[in-house]
Amino acid sequence: MPELRKDPVVGRWVIISTERGRRPSDFPSQPVVAQGGSCVFCPHNEAKTPPELFAVRSSDSLPNTPGWSLRVVPNKFPALRIEGELEPSGEGLYDRMNGVGAHEVIIETPDHAATLATLPVEAVAEVLLAYRERVVDLKKDPRFEYILVFKNHGAAAGASLEHPHSQLIATPIIPIMVQEELKGAAEYYGMKERCVWCDVIRQERRDRRRIIMEADGFVALAPFAPRFPFETWILPSRHRSSFEETGVEELRGLAELLGRFLRRLDGVLQRPPFNFMLHTAPLRDGPLDHFHWHLEIIPKLTNVAGYEWGTGFFINPVPPEDAAAALRENGA
Amino acid sequence: MPELRKDPVVGRWVIISTERGRRPSDFPSQPVVAQGGSCVFCPHNEAKTPPELFAVRSSDSLPNTPGWSLRVVPNKFPALRIEGELEPSGEGLYDRMNGVGAHEVIIETPDHAATLATLPVEAVAEVLLAYRERVVDLKKDPRFEYILVFKNHGAAAGASLEHPHSQLIATPIIPIMVQEELKGAAEYYGMKERCVWCDVIRQERRDRRRIIMEADGFVALAPFAPRFPFETWILPSRHRSSFEETGVEELRGLAELLGRFLRRLDGVLQRPPFNFMLHTAPLRDGPLDHFHWHLEIIPKLTNVAGYEWGTGFFINPVPPEDAAAALRENGA
Repeated sequence: MPELRKDPVVGRWVIISTERGRRPSDFPSQPVVAQGGSCVFCPHNEAKTPPELFAVRSSDSLPNTPGWSLRVVPNKFPALRIEGELEPSGEGLYDRMNGVGAHEVIIETPDHAATLATLPVEAVAEVLLAYRERVVDLKKDPRFEYILVFKNHGAAAGASLEHPHSQLIATPIIPIMVQEELKGAAEYYGMKERCVWCDVIRQERRDRRRIIMEADGFVALAPFAPRFPFETWILPSRHRSSFEETGVEELRGLAELLGRFLRRLDGVLQRPPFNFMLHTAPLRDGPLDHFHWHLEIIPKLTNVAGYEWGTGFFINPVPPEDAAAALRENGA
Repeated sequence: MPELRKDPVVGRWVIISTERGRRPSDFPSQPVVAQGGSCVFCPHNEAKTPPELFAVRSSDSLPNTPGWSLRVVPNKFPALRIEGELEPSGEGLYDRMNGVGAHEVIIETPDHAATLATLPVEAVAEVLLAYRERVVDLKKDPRFEYILVFKNHGAAAGASLEHPHSQLIATPIIPIMVQEELKGAAEYYGMKERCVWCDVIRQERRDRRRIIMEADGFVALAPFAPRFPFETWILPSRHRSSFEETGVEELRGLAELLGRFLRRLDGVLQRPPFNFMLHTAPLRDGPLDHFHWHLEIIPKLTNVAGYEWGTGFFINPVPPEDAAAALRENGA
C-alpha cells in the first residue's frame, strides 16, 4: 500500500509509492519508452491496460476494443491506490496516512505519432472534455479534496510512454503548492477586493510585452516572474475558479488556443519536451472570487539543480519579454 | 543587469539572469561539458577564470598560477552581479529589484578526474574549510542575507563542467524554502521547546531503520518523508544553527563521513549524478535554538515531472527504510 508521509519541519507531504515497482537495484536505469507496435496505448492493445473508465468511441464498438478516439484508464502503476480509507496515524513525531487516491491516464488519440500540436482542434477539445468528465465524476467521491490534471511530454519531461497521453491524480489532501496559491490569492483579494489573476490579465493587456496570443476567451502570456525559460500561462479572460465549470464552447476556444500555442512552441524550440499542469480550485470550495483557474506550461530546457532544490529560488536565463516575443505569431 | 522578480500570487522570487548568455536561439542545446585539456578549471588554465578570491597553494606559488590544491573564483557567468544596490521598484502590481549577489565556484582539486568520493579525507576537509572561509568573508557584506553552498555533480544534475567543483550564491533576500524551514522549525520549538532536528536524530537513533551511518559527531540518515529516492541528510549530532561556527576538527569529522557516504552511494547506485545543498541559518540571525544546520544530498535518478511541478507533492518510489538499508555499510 502506498503511503502519504509528512515532513516534520516544513509540513510537505510526499507519496511513498512502493507499488510503482522500482527497487534500489532498478536504478539508475530509466523507464523504457515503448515504440510503435508494442505500445500498450495503441489500438488492439486495449487488454494491456486496466478496463476503461471513459471513452469516446463509435456506437458499434464495445468497451476495451478498437473503435475509440479517446480512452481514459486507471494507471497500471498507480502512485496511489483507489481502495481503502486514510487511517491517519503517528510514528513518534512523524505523521502518515494510507496512500488513497485515483491515478488515471487519458489516452488522447489512437494515433501513436500525433501530439496535441498536430491533432485537429476537435480532437484537442475532446481531450479537454475528457478532463472535465473525469473531474466531475471523481468529485462525487467524498474522500478526494483535489485533482491535478497534468501532462508529461517527452522522456526528459518524465514521460515513460511515447503515445500521446495526459494523467490526473486525485488526492485526499490539498497539495502544498495549491494551498500557497490559494493563500496568496486570498491575501491579495483581502487587500484589493479583486482577483490577482484578473489584475494580471488587465495589466498585461495594457503592457503587451508578455502577451503571447489571445483568442476565443483565453489569453496565453509569459508570467512576470517565470521559474523556467518559456514558461507560459493560459487563462480564461473571464473570471472563473473551477475548470470543471467551463462550457463546451469555451473548451473549444481553449483547444484552439492551446493547439496554436503548442505549434508555435514546437516551431521556436524544435519540439521540446514539456509539462503542463491545470491549476484549478479545490473540489469542495465552490466558486471562489479570489481564485482563477489556469494552465501552466513549462518546456523542459534546463536542468533544475542544487541551487533551486536548496532555495526554491529559480534561475531563469530567458526574460519572459524575450520568450513572449519569440512565441508571438507575428514574431514581433 | 540580472533582475530579481517576485511572483504576485505566491511571493516566490526568481532570478532573471540575462547575463548567463543564453538566448532563445540557444535552446534546446545543453551546455557543453569540457573534457580534459581544454578544461578551464585545470592547472595551467588559471587565466581562463576570473582572478581567484581564495586558494590553498604552495607557499612559493603566485596567485592564479599552478601550485594550488584548491581555488575559489567568481563564476564567469554569474546568476547575480556583485556590484550595485538593490533599488527595489514596482511595475504595476509587480515587484522587482536589481540582481545583486555573489556567485562563486569552489574548484575542489587540481585533479580533473577526482571526486569527493575519491579524494583523501584531508582534501575533502579542505573543501569544507573553503566553504566556511568564503561564508565568513561574504558575511561582512551588509547587503547579503543568505548564502547557499551547493554542488551539482554530473550533467544530469545540472553540472556544466566536469571538473570537480561546488558553488555558492549569496543573496540580498532569504530564499522562500529557507523561510519555510525556519517557520516550521520555530513553530515546533514554540510547542515543544526542543529543536525538531534534534528530536529527529533522537527518534532515528532509537528506531535505526533510517540511519545510514554515524561517526565523529555526525549522522547520515534517510529522512522520513523524502522527496527523492535515496535522499540523505547529514546533520551534526550536537545542536548548532550555523555551518560557519563549525570548528576545524568537526569539519574533519564531516569530511570523513561525507567521503564514506559518497563512496557507498557510488557503489550502490553506480556513480549517480547528484546535488547537495548546505542548509544553514540566515547570516544575520545569530545562534538559533530552533534551527539545526544540515547537508541535504539528492541523487538524480528520476525526472521531476508535471505532478511535482503542479503540486509540490513528490512521488518517491523508494521507501527511505529500503534506501537506508541499501546504503548501510554492513548492508543490513
